[in-house]
Amino acid sequence: MAAKNRSFNVAVVGATGIAGQQFLAALEGHPWFKLKRVAASQRSAGKPYGEAVRDAASGASRWYGEKACPADYLNLNVEQAEHLKIDDIDIVFTALESDAAKEVEPLYAKKCPVISTASAFRYEEDVPIFLPGINPGHAALIETQRKNRGFKGFITPGPNCTTVGLAITLKPLFDAFGVQSVIMTSLQAISGAGRNPGVLGMDILDNVIPYIPKEEEKIEKETGKILGKVAGGKIEHAKIPVSCNCTRVNVHDGHLETVNVGLGKKASLDEVKAVWAKSYEELRASKLPSAPAEMIHYTEDPFRPQPRLDRDRGDGMTTTVGRLRQDHVLPNGVKYVLLSHNTKMGAAKGAILTAEYLIEKGVIG
Amino acid sequence: MAAKNRSFNVAVVGATGIAGQQFLAALEGHPWFKLKRVAASQRSAGKPYGEAVRDAASGASRWYGEKACPADYLNLNVEQAEHLKIDDIDIVFTALESDAAKEVEPLYAKKCPVISTASAFRYEEDVPIFLPGINPGHAALIETQRKNRGFKGFITPGPNCTTVGLAITLKPLFDAFGVQSVIMTSLQAISGAGRNPGVLGMDILDNVIPYIPKEEEKIEKETGKILGKVAGGKIEHAKIPVSCNCTRVNVHDGHLETVNVGLGKKASLDEVKAVWAKSYEELRASKLPSAPAEMIHYTEDPFRPQPRLDRDRGDGMTTTVGRLRQDHVLPNGVKYVLLSHNTKMGAAKGAILTAEYLIEKGVIG
Amino acid sequence: MAAKNRSFNVAVVGATGIAGQQFLAALEGHPWFKLKRVAASQRSAGKPYGEAVRDAASGASRWYGEKACPADYLNLNVEQAEHLKIDDIDIVFTALESDAAKEVEPLYAKKCPVISTASAFRYEEDVPIFLPGINPGHAALIETQRKNRGFKGFITPGPNCTTVGLAITLKPLFDAFGVQSVIMTSLQAISGAGRNPGVLGMDILDNVIPYIPKEEEKIEKETGKILGKVAGGKIEHAKIPVSCNCTRVNVHDGHLETVNVGLGKKASLDEVKAVWAKSYEELRASKLPSAPAEMIHYTEDPFRPQPRLDRDRGDGMTTTVGRLRQDHVLPNGVKYVLLSHNTKMGAAKGAILTAEYLIEKGVIG
Amino acid sequence: MAAKNRSFNVAVVGATGIAGQQFLAALEGHPWFKLKRVAASQRSAGKPYGEAVRDAASGASRWYGEKACPADYLNLNVEQAEHLKIDDIDIVFTALESDAAKEVEPLYAKKCPVISTASAFRYEEDVPIFLPGINPGHAALIETQRKNRGFKGFITPGPNCTTVGLAITLKPLFDAFGVQSVIMTSLQAISGAGRNPGVLGMDILDNVIPYIPKEEEKIEKETGKILGKVAGGKIEHAKIPVSCNCTRVNVHDGHLETVNVGLGKKASLDEVKAVWAKSYEELRASKLPSAPAEMIHYTEDPFRPQPRLDRDRGDGMTTTVGRLRQDHVLPNGVKYVLLSHNTKMGAAKGAILTAEYLIEKGVIG
Repeated sequence: MAAKNRSFNVAVVGATGIAGQQFLAALEGHPWFKLKRVAASQRSAGKPYGEAVRDAASGASRWYGEKACPADYLNLNVEQAEHLKIDDIDIVFTALESDAAKEVEPLYAKKCPVISTASAFRYEEDVPIFLPGINPGHAALIETQRKNRGFKGFITPGPNCTTVGLAITLKPLFDAFGVQSVIMTSLQAISGAGRNPGVLGMDILDNVIPYIPKEEEKIEKETGKILGKVAGGKIEHAKIPVSCNCTRVNVHDGHLETVNVGLGKKASLDEVKAVWAKSYEELRASKLPSAPAEMIHYTEDPFRPQPRLDRDRGDGMTTTVGRLRQDHVLPNGVKYVLLSHNTKMGAAKGAILTAEYLIEKGVIG
Repeated sequence: MAAKNRSFNVAVVGATGIAGQQFLAALEGHPWFKLKRVAASQRSAGKPYGEAVRDAASGASRWYGEKACPADYLNLNVEQAEHLKIDDIDIVFTALESDAAKEVEPLYAKKCPVISTASAFRYEEDVPIFLPGINPGHAALIETQRKNRGFKGFITPGPNCTTVGLAITLKPLFDAFGVQSVIMTSLQAISGAGRNPGVLGMDILDNVIPYIPKEEEKIEKETGKILGKVAGGKIEHAKIPVSCNCTRVNVHDGHLETVNVGLGKKASLDEVKAVWAKSYEELRASKLPSAPAEMIHYTEDPFRPQPRLDRDRGDGMTTTVGRLRQDHVLPNGVKYVLLSHNTKMGAAKGAILTAEYLIEKGVIG
Repeated sequence: MAAKNRSFNVAVVGATGIAGQQFLAALEGHPWFKLKRVAASQRSAGKPYGEAVRDAASGASRWYGEKACPADYLNLNVEQAEHLKIDDIDIVFTALESDAAKEVEPLYAKKCPVISTASAFRYEEDVPIFLPGINPGHAALIETQRKNRGFKGFITPGPNCTTVGLAITLKPLFDAFGVQSVIMTSLQAISGAGRNPGVLGMDILDNVIPYIPKEEEKIEKETGKILGKVAGGKIEHAKIPVSCNCTRVNVHDGHLETVNVGLGKKASLDEVKAVWAKSYEELRASKLPSAPAEMIHYTEDPFRPQPRLDRDRGDGMTTTVGRLRQDHVLPNGVKYVLLSHNTKMGAAKGAILTAEYLIEKGVIG
Repeated sequence: MAAKNRSFNVAVVGATGIAGQQFLAALEGHPWFKLKRVAASQRSAGKPYGEAVRDAASGASRWYGEKACPADYLNLNVEQAEHLKIDDIDIVFTALESDAAKEVEPLYAKKCPVISTASAFRYEEDVPIFLPGINPGHAALIETQRKNRGFKGFITPGPNCTTVGLAITLKPLFDAFGVQSVIMTSLQAISGAGRNPGVLGMDILDNVIPYIPKEEEKIEKETGKILGKVAGGKIEHAKIPVSCNCTRVNVHDGHLETVNVGLGKKASLDEVKAVWAKSYEELRASKLPSAPAEMIHYTEDPFRPQPRLDRDRGDGMTTTVGRLRQDHVLPNGVKYVLLSHNTKMGAAKGAILTAEYLIEKGVIG
């Protein structure tokens, strides 16, 4: 199929929330995807989108994007999520809380591929978690899912935003050297907590909150699943013990992670850098619309990566890595710092790249 | 010697800088120590202290304490560090940059005990790094130091501020279970970088700086030294591989650390908590003027410790620990989060507690 | 009545919220007031207070004080606000949202004085807004209020937290020189927005929000009322045009205000300072338990007042003023910067001082 | 002269500092200006630019731009400011501290137009301060300046960054209604203080600094000069009393100002908005390369403008205004809030727009 002719009607569900808005921002001017429908909860249903993201009483905007809401979308009628029409839709992107996702995603999946930022189905055996360039083979699960659940489409959630940078940087090491163990501490941005209720300014100013409920378990589980391989119609998780310490810091966007890795065999720092440098070649060559020029950018500046300076590299789709050093605690240990944009590669725009990737691979099409 | 009769004349060198000011704040109303002399660089020498900490041109204060500068100290004449008179001084506290410390601390040590926040002599073989309640036996080095250097007094620097909380929490585990390995990520406060030049607001706002030059090496080295034992007139460092990732976050005071520890033998979480609960008994019983009621406070609130809420526990002298969990990467692994006040227990007030402790132990007096 | 014998049973309503917690913190160890009862919404009713301020599921604390919750209060039974027993109560302090206050404060006022941080009754003609040392004569309204409403007690709300510092600094100028006009811009702390929903970290980080709904009108109205005088059983508002610009900045506590004032007659800067210096003499002489040594502290440091450094002066009860200069726009103009602690003098502790003051004046007793 | 043929060689002096870097960033890909030479202090002289903005010892970048330094500039040889060759240069942009500017700008002005961000010559009688679209007539001063100083070129500094938004929003009101008085409080970003020494993180975190030395006087003076008219070879300052309160808040970029204005005659809010809406027509029509589509953008969202959300409007060249209300203190008073990007329109990029504007007007050419 020639790229030129690629054209898909898409819907965004949970479109008025912050993650949904990021879908809209990322879909503006997209060469393949045309935003045809938006859906949200009953409270917004029936309003034009532009009204649904404005507070009628005060006139205050509830659109949180860096740029103004794309003008084309202001007049889209907001449908109620449960009743979204999908006959003319090719892909549904969902940006819902987990409970709502659990309920409505299967409705859409009866007909369509559903690519989600919610965790609702992430740990189900027949549900793949795709990361572009890492695990296209997991598409084999889709047949199982369809059989199990009576879908014509399928559901695939993206990983937790903190898993994204970790899995992207581990995958090339895993392939080249093996990975035996991982200890990771995250310094996560407040946008990751969303707005409902989100993190209060008075709680995070001059402070760190050293606990994010359920986050560590998610990352520990997802990493093995994403790096796993399909065997017998199932994903055999990679057996890598991962130990996480997740903290929240007063940063708007961009999750920083310190990563200590025990490799399967000894590797010099130069060898590690070389592996990263040539990673994701196929993906980069494919020049998908949302794919960055570099999936991993290694910086030799010892003071980098920094959230404010590096989060927007590759328009938020590149993982920036620095400070690669030997680690003398883990066997064949190395350690590094990574920075990944939690609301771009880690959420909506990452889901859109996944859709592009699955199209490229013929999984959607 | 009865506590009632304890009375020592002390001097503070580097008194106009921020660490020096913290010494003055901590000495106000001290029951044993009388601040007799203050010294600083040539620029301030000859001025009354109150003038030296005010900008003459603008009238702006250069006193950075939470409370006003103790009135008694405003008229102390600032002497030049190189020419400080020490005939009537029993203990010298120094708060200098490393280069200046290297030069002047030996001058004072000819006569006096010198307790320092500088790293200048920290890694010398004949120099102990005391932490109250942990390594009084290291006092055996003092004789060696005197012989080597022709001192009547001695020099003892405190640990790096980031080592303090780590060593305090590891020591009870080390004694009870053994410690085989440590991986630590620190989220350090900006006050730790001081004011010269310190961390710029525009560099740390909405940001993390994932590198603090020389910090990781210091902690990795000091931990083994502090937990080491004296044998043959030397400190035999504890052979614990420690791997650190030191970052700077936008917090005023209070270093937070995520710590993954491999113990020498399996221990339940309750056993670990019990060990901490009964640790530092002798020190706590001694009721030294600057010692907190608890050296370690364990909190069951999963969202704690937090810098803003926990740094002032025990007037900044208590290390707050929380989130104790099993770690499945390190052998017999546990992990926890700690919070230690970097400019109180981690600097001046910690040095004053060390002085009290060495008096209690008969090393000074 | 001799101060020694003063003893009042008090209740705090809205006790589990952040303002209510501040009442509890300020009442700990109070020499006159004994906290006998606490009340809150139905959700907390029936629980011991300590349980009501902890999240049962996660174990997380919902107590937001700098210091731990006073141990004595942990076991107080939380009553439902509508059904609070007040037979044994002498004063009720309320810390409710305006709607709830409107409903329950009259219930209490049937029997008791009610001192409130809510704005519900603030603009009623028969309701005085007291500021200690400023307008004791407004007590004359209480009889009117009792007649109008059939109360044995009465309701008196404190001013908006941003009015407090403004009125305190204007009153001495008003008495000495007259005040013709006021233009004020506030830079308000996020704690002023409370927690429900409060200001999100992602909205205020690296930002200013230049609008606080209804705030400007409140201050403009209250200032004239507080400085007004009673005539014919009513408060004749002082006719001072006040123009406010209220903004929210990323500061935890402490409202800073730039104030341009047109005086009734020309006054030198020294005369203004002299007036402030001798202001509130009677109040200061009365040595009420919550009154600071200085109601107004003038600083000559041109870089002060600053929220972080000055908010806790006088345990948060002193208004710090600086940068007094001539203003060439307003007639007889002067301008200055003030800093007032919004959750101490500006809220609960200010209300407690008001209670003490009304007792001193014989209005409560 | 046809725009197509416009081509000027330019030099940037003070190129390694933060303001100089902003010139380089703004010159990248500029259709008229070719960066031919860069100059800095002796410390950087002789190095390629790329080396001059990197710390050799640590490898740390000293380039502070949002985007990477334009690759073309990395190899430019840094000349020493005093010895900059200007034979092949048409315009010199300087971004120096005031003292250095005082010394070297006259050297360049002997031959070239010098457009500066320094205040060195800003208050000289024969030196115009241009703001595009406001005061092209001030070019009449240039002849006087040339005579007075023996220049073939001339010196023109831009206004203080805080004056920029104020003058831009006042000018249309001044022309339409007259302006009788202005009271302004600024909430200024920390980038305005630069890096030398700049504002320390520990001084601004959880804080406001209510004083910026010399700032208020500058704005009060410059506003009248910019709005003044040329008569008898001099600028007759507009006689507008302006009273400023300048504060520093913890915002990276973007100065917010609350402005109370007394107009020359009564105007409704709609009339004021209409005046702003049609302002700067000629400038906007000229479509200069650095001119924004809107010089003034009025927002009806009551919570805007906000620094983080509005500073980059028009790539940092648009002044965003909101919250227009009546003011009842000043005669014919209105009040509003404005937001102006201090390091774009308020500094380097504003200077570049000024150069374009002076070319358009035939002053440079």
